[in-house]
Amino acid sequence: MSKPTSPWSVAGDRVRQRELKRDAVILAAARAFRERGFHNTSLDDIAAVLHVTKPTLYYYVLNKEQMLFECFREGLNRIVRACGEARDASSSGRERLVELVCRYVEAITSDFGWCMVRAEDQDLSPAMSARIKRLKSEIDQEMRSLIRQGIADGSIGACDPKMTTFALAGALNWIAHWYRDDASLSAAQIAERFVELFVNGLAPRPDGVISGKST
Amino acid sequence: MSKPTSPWSVAGDRVRQRELKRDAVILAAARAFRERGFHNTSLDDIAAVLHVTKPTLYYYVLNKEQMLFECFREGLNRIVRACGEARDASSSGRERLVELVCRYVEAITSDFGWCMVRAEDQDLSPAMSARIKRLKSEIDQEMRSLIRQGIADGSIGACDPKMTTFALAGALNWIAHWYRDDASLSAAQIAERFVELFVNGLAPRPDGVISGKST
Repeated sequence: MSKPTSPWSVAGDRVRQRELKRDAVILAAARAFRERGFHNTSLDDIAAVLHVTKPTLYYYVLNKEQMLFECFREGLNRIVRACGEARDASSSGRERLVELVCRYVEAITSDFGWCMVRAEDQDLSPAMSARIKRLKSEIDQEMRSLIRQGIADGSIGACDPKMTTFALAGALNWIAHWYRDDASLSAAQIAERFVELFVNGLAPRPDGVISGKST
Repeated sequence: MSKPTSPWSVAGDRVRQRELKRDAVILAAARAFRERGFHNTSLDDIAAVLHVTKPTLYYYVLNKEQMLFECFREGLNRIVRACGEARDASSSGRERLVELVCRYVEAITSDFGWCMVRAEDQDLSPAMSARIKRLKSEIDQEMRSLIRQGIADGSIGACDPKMTTFALAGALNWIAHWYRDDASLSAAQIAERFVELFVNGLAPRPDGVISGKST
């Protein structure tokens, strides 16, 4: 049996096709920016990788700046989704923070990691910079909130939530600077080691090491 | 009594004067790069701040790239000196690492912090990039070594020295991204909170919090 043809299903296919193509454009851009840097990458470079012409790209993005922004948002959305799931979980503040850290490592080690960390430094329009700052601020506030919850429920010791968040986010964001040169560990293995440091600290624990992961 | 005039002392004065002026050039450059970014800063901008002409700057540096490199080296040398002192200290591996972390925070929050962290990303010549990478690698190796010593002397729990160093250095380097916008804490106060997290971890310590600072 052949599927019935219909202008609606065709339209639906078109929407899906457009989304697939847009995703391919964003992914190709993310890889090019990471390889060569934002300033050294042209839309022609990205078009060449995709075997299309530059005008085709303009069907999906307005300009190179918007492309960087979309790459940035693609990566960041993974963390924002993880934040939402952390909010809904019933585990302790520390366990939810650890889960968020693991998802953060996944996002930063993805193709979009470079753009997530470096986008802000590029010469974007003030409006675009403001949007990027707002999205980053959401994640920052979420981490602080999880730390405050952990202090309240006794799973995290007394600390300065803001500075602790800055330290954690810094360690996590910095992964984008070295990850490509050091692929000997998987994202999960990196997360495991980072969580071990964050949760247990450097000083030996006479009471034994605490598992960072929720069961 | 007037000082005896002598061509040698005058020559000595000249050397000192030259060093003072060179330091002023590097400091002005560091501040300009931090304010406007490397690409958006011209040598004319830096000359204007110092009330000199651009040719005067060429007496101290060859070009803008070298200026960035000198800014980077100025900041990094503070950490390298701290590494040397840490090597000579007789305290435990953890105490020496904590001391190095405190000096690292001082350097990163200085006027040279921005250049130390961002220099590598700019479009420097391959030779200059290689020199920057080599200097950074020295500090990286020193931190790993202190962690290994701490594990050996029992002041640091079992961990992956390389990944732990990456996490610590990331948290520290990232300070350059937020410090200017958040000057409510001094470098020493930031160091104290970071050390608390690194040494004790997030999980409460039933045995009490361990002081990061050596006595």
